[in-house]
Amino acid sequence: MLSRNEVKYIQTLRHKKNRDEEDVFTAEGLKVISELIEADFNLKKIYALKDWLDEHTDIENAVEITEDELKKISNFKTPNKVFAIFRKKTAEQIHGLKNKITLVLDGIQDPGNLGTIVRTADWFGIENIIASTDTADIYNPKVVQATMGSIARVSIVYTDLKAFLSNNKIVVLGAVLDGENISAIEKLTESLVIIGNESKGIRNEIQPFIHKKISIPKKGNAESLNAAVAAGIILAKLVS
Amino acid sequence: MLSRNEVKYIQTLRHKKNRDEEDVFTAEGLKVISELIEADFNLKKIYALKDWLDEHTDIENAVEITEDELKKISNFKTPNKVFAIFRKKTAEQIHGLKNKITLVLDGIQDPGNLGTIVRTADWFGIENIIASTDTADIYNPKVVQATMGSIARVSIVYTDLKAFLSNNKIVVLGAVLDGENISAIEKLTESLVIIGNESKGIRNEIQPFIHKKISIPKKGNAESLNAAVAAGIILAKLVS
Repeated sequence: MLSRNEVKYIQTLRHKKNRDEEDVFTAEGLKVISELIEADFNLKKIYALKDWLDEHTDIENAVEITEDELKKISNFKTPNKVFAIFRKKTAEQIHGLKNKITLVLDGIQDPGNLGTIVRTADWFGIENIIASTDTADIYNPKVVQATMGSIARVSIVYTDLKAFLSNNKIVVLGAVLDGENISAIEKLTESLVIIGNESKGIRNEIQPFIHKKISIPKKGNAESLNAAVAAGIILAKLVS
Repeated sequence: MLSRNEVKYIQTLRHKKNRDEEDVFTAEGLKVISELIEADFNLKKIYALKDWLDEHTDIENAVEITEDELKKISNFKTPNKVFAIFRKKTAEQIHGLKNKITLVLDGIQDPGNLGTIVRTADWFGIENIIASTDTADIYNPKVVQATMGSIARVSIVYTDLKAFLSNNKIVVLGAVLDGENISAIEKLTESLVIIGNESKGIRNEIQPFIHKKISIPKKGNAESLNAAVAAGIILAKLVS
């Protein structure tokens, strides 16, 4: 049973401002929620239909709700049995970046693209993504779902990239238009790989932090390459 | 000046059925339209504001319209000066596939994904895409715009893949989960590369036509790789 106030509170979490203030995000559906729980995300509260609860008797902070109540709090037209509020990961929870490939996103503004990048990172076993503060919000309910559970395995931290890169000791690769052909780059076990905004590229104030400029050679006439596609091509080359 | 009937006719072209019957598609905005004209697409009619027409006095089949009229026929909230109806390319207009890499799409159903694939193909200089009849419609107005002009340079033909592959003499690569690691594949100058549906893969009846199975190795736990990302990784490897 959901009180009117609880419904209202949950609905406020559709807005980034409120999620940020509360330091939480919401997720829905069997698959994404079970992967987040499995990945030890801190579960604040879970709202579920009776049949889901009957199968998950060990879950704490659970509230039984009706289909109608689920519809009120869901962000989707066809909700799927369970809705949960999780605490975000904090920067401290990011595991060390040593001996790992880490993606650094500079101004990726399209939420769908960000979701695809997170899934691509997960495919290649990338554990961490550092994102500029103007990168799309991974905790937007639609992006959470679009990652199809990969959000449970890839940690994203939003931070001031300039400050972060100033204190960094790992070699930094940057995808630019005039760098070394990616096909000549060797497999790597440790680096930061900066992916810039699709139309603007990596911004000027970040460029000086790049140790090695890399490029995906253009054979045709497309104006730009989708940022998720570019990230996939670079990770495939570095990781496999 | 637009008659009410003409507005109605143009609005019917928002539906695939009507576009197919008329064998046309619509495009909007300065960039996409000028690239389509440059690529010698057959222009059936163009509707434009006075200032655009003043700069393009050599265009035939042009009708001057007002901003209000443009809003009525446009598919977008903020139309951009010009709207055009083009004839689709026919299968006969596809240039030969010999000595070229050609993408074959088997059931790519997400329109956004298809637009990204067309742009990625254009980046790597791919001229032709053969798509199964259940692949998303490239002539959907939103996809046309999403290709950002690449639709002018990459030809897409929809056909029965089974019949097409039965008559094909070019080596066929297929992206599957248990193929040869893509990093071991050599650069190629001629082949068909089949990309399957993201969740279902290449369908069973198409699999026998694959001469060489290739895979993008998975290091992490993502369930699947976005089809456009997969196409980009494979093309980067084959072409550059």
